[in-house]
Amino acid sequence: MNRITQLFGIRYPVIQAGMIWCSGWELASAVSNAGGLGLIGSGSMYPDILRDHIRKCKDHTDEPFGVNVPLLYPQTDDHIRIILEEGVKIVFTSAGNPKKYTSFLKEHGVKVVHVVANLKFALKCVEAGVDAIVAEGFEAGGHNGIEETATMCLIPLVRQAVDIPLIAAGGIGSGRTMLAAFALGAEGVQIGSRFVASEESSAHPHFKKTVVEAGDGNTRIILKKVVPVRVIMNRFYEDIKTAEDRGATPEELREILGRARAKKGMFEGDMDDGELEIGQVSAQISSVRPAAEILADIIREFEEARKKLAATGLG
Amino acid sequence: MNRITQLFGIRYPVIQAGMIWCSGWELASAVSNAGGLGLIGSGSMYPDILRDHIRKCKDHTDEPFGVNVPLLYPQTDDHIRIILEEGVKIVFTSAGNPKKYTSFLKEHGVKVVHVVANLKFALKCVEAGVDAIVAEGFEAGGHNGIEETATMCLIPLVRQAVDIPLIAAGGIGSGRTMLAAFALGAEGVQIGSRFVASEESSAHPHFKKTVVEAGDGNTRIILKKVVPVRVIMNRFYEDIKTAEDRGATPEELREILGRARAKKGMFEGDMDDGELEIGQVSAQISSVRPAAEILADIIREFEEARKKLAATGLG
Repeated sequence: MNRITQLFGIRYPVIQAGMIWCSGWELASAVSNAGGLGLIGSGSMYPDILRDHIRKCKDHTDEPFGVNVPLLYPQTDDHIRIILEEGVKIVFTSAGNPKKYTSFLKEHGVKVVHVVANLKFALKCVEAGVDAIVAEGFEAGGHNGIEETATMCLIPLVRQAVDIPLIAAGGIGSGRTMLAAFALGAEGVQIGSRFVASEESSAHPHFKKTVVEAGDGNTRIILKKVVPVRVIMNRFYEDIKTAEDRGATPEELREILGRARAKKGMFEGDMDDGELEIGQVSAQISSVRPAAEILADIIREFEEARKKLAATGLG
Repeated sequence: MNRITQLFGIRYPVIQAGMIWCSGWELASAVSNAGGLGLIGSGSMYPDILRDHIRKCKDHTDEPFGVNVPLLYPQTDDHIRIILEEGVKIVFTSAGNPKKYTSFLKEHGVKVVHVVANLKFALKCVEAGVDAIVAEGFEAGGHNGIEETATMCLIPLVRQAVDIPLIAAGGIGSGRTMLAAFALGAEGVQIGSRFVASEESSAHPHFKKTVVEAGDGNTRIILKKVVPVRVIMNRFYEDIKTAEDRGATPEELREILGRARAKKGMFEGDMDDGELEIGQVSAQISSVRPAAEILADIIREFEEARKKLAATGLG
């Protein structure tokens, strides 16, 4: 038991990240049933689709689950309304100002967590009154901070400055990395990439295969002039990178980017021209497995590594 | 005792990184006298200067110390010759091919460690027959890998693939971060930035002050088209960044870079137009202190955090 398991009423302080195109009700309910906290990623869902996922998630688990709401899409107000109508009790907001919805959600009895990539926003979260913070490092897949602060540096910085419960994200996908996050001062971890390569993830099978095959150095952050995002280095990446190297403007980059690239890659399986958002930890992922087994392995490895470390004195 | 302390005959598995303009005999001998392994950074030294530093280091400590040799300067052969003539028994090579000097040095009874930033070069190190590997993540100051793999991801990747002693670097400057590195599978840590802000460091006082004042997100990697390097974001950085954003070629960047920028900043104290190499961990550094106190604090914090973590079961 720690502050994260108490806050959410879950067994293990492991949160499955809400991810566009990968985390619907199947993944979220599987993780929640296994003792973690599953999150439905609303970022890629129209409001009615989100409602459908929430209802199906409730049908498939009696355990707590939540919804992740990135605050950068036009339908956020609709998402928040549906979340309240459907009685969801846990919301992770991200990619925006924590002050926007926190008070409103908390007035309706929702537990609110906000995702940050730097110290400044962590302090803003405390002011906003969130229940916990996810501090996500440079290693993470998908949208990323402009500061590029890696998890090893971000977690101690935030831990030193805030007293509220702290969840580490970015580069975490195993028991050892979870233990490292705890050594840095985190009380829970949020894991995305590892769950993309799960049986219950709604990622296209081609994308899951690509994640399993990815090696060291196969991801990069692009689009820093627009919104930084970590992706697999495929043809889409090369197109953007070539433009960036010649000094393309944000407008030119948006044109090359076009529309629905993430859906094309992660959901429809176009491994060449799709945007494939995944973290650096993909280099350590070598199989697609049931979410419950992934979680059980993480917990087992955490405990083994913890016992080994406990015996490693510098005396 | 572990494989790193045994290999070098030192008390604590903490290596002070060899750094240009910051780590001469004063810092190296202070760290070695305090129970860590001090390294003279030869990268910024003419051969005769290096010889002088080695001799003074021998005069000031009876403990083991070493020399770091970046393999990207024209005088490397001279450096290696002087190291052998002066009887130095530990060499850390970096920024080049581990096969170049490892056999030669080992034939002369020198223990050889090579610094890598990716899995591929870690495997090359094993083939080259090095005694240990330093795996240095994206967080690190100064020269950096093109893969941008952060310490949290790099250490488990290398640990899984190699059996030889493994030292983690990048983002480490405290007992908590050292403990995290051990959780990831490292048996030692190499610490650079924290020792830049030590009394014995040869960094200019202005630079030490800048390191102490640096906050979250105040460093970035630039010059990716030439040789990636992590620096403080000052006017020099802005000049390079502006050129990069408009698509400057490597040749144009080299021209803006000019010569001796690192010396100008780190050694001569020009905080505007000098190149100020430092890691992300600078955001956690808040004082300039004697190296021995820095090391003692790291060890104390490691032990405290280890005991706390040992009691943190997920049960």
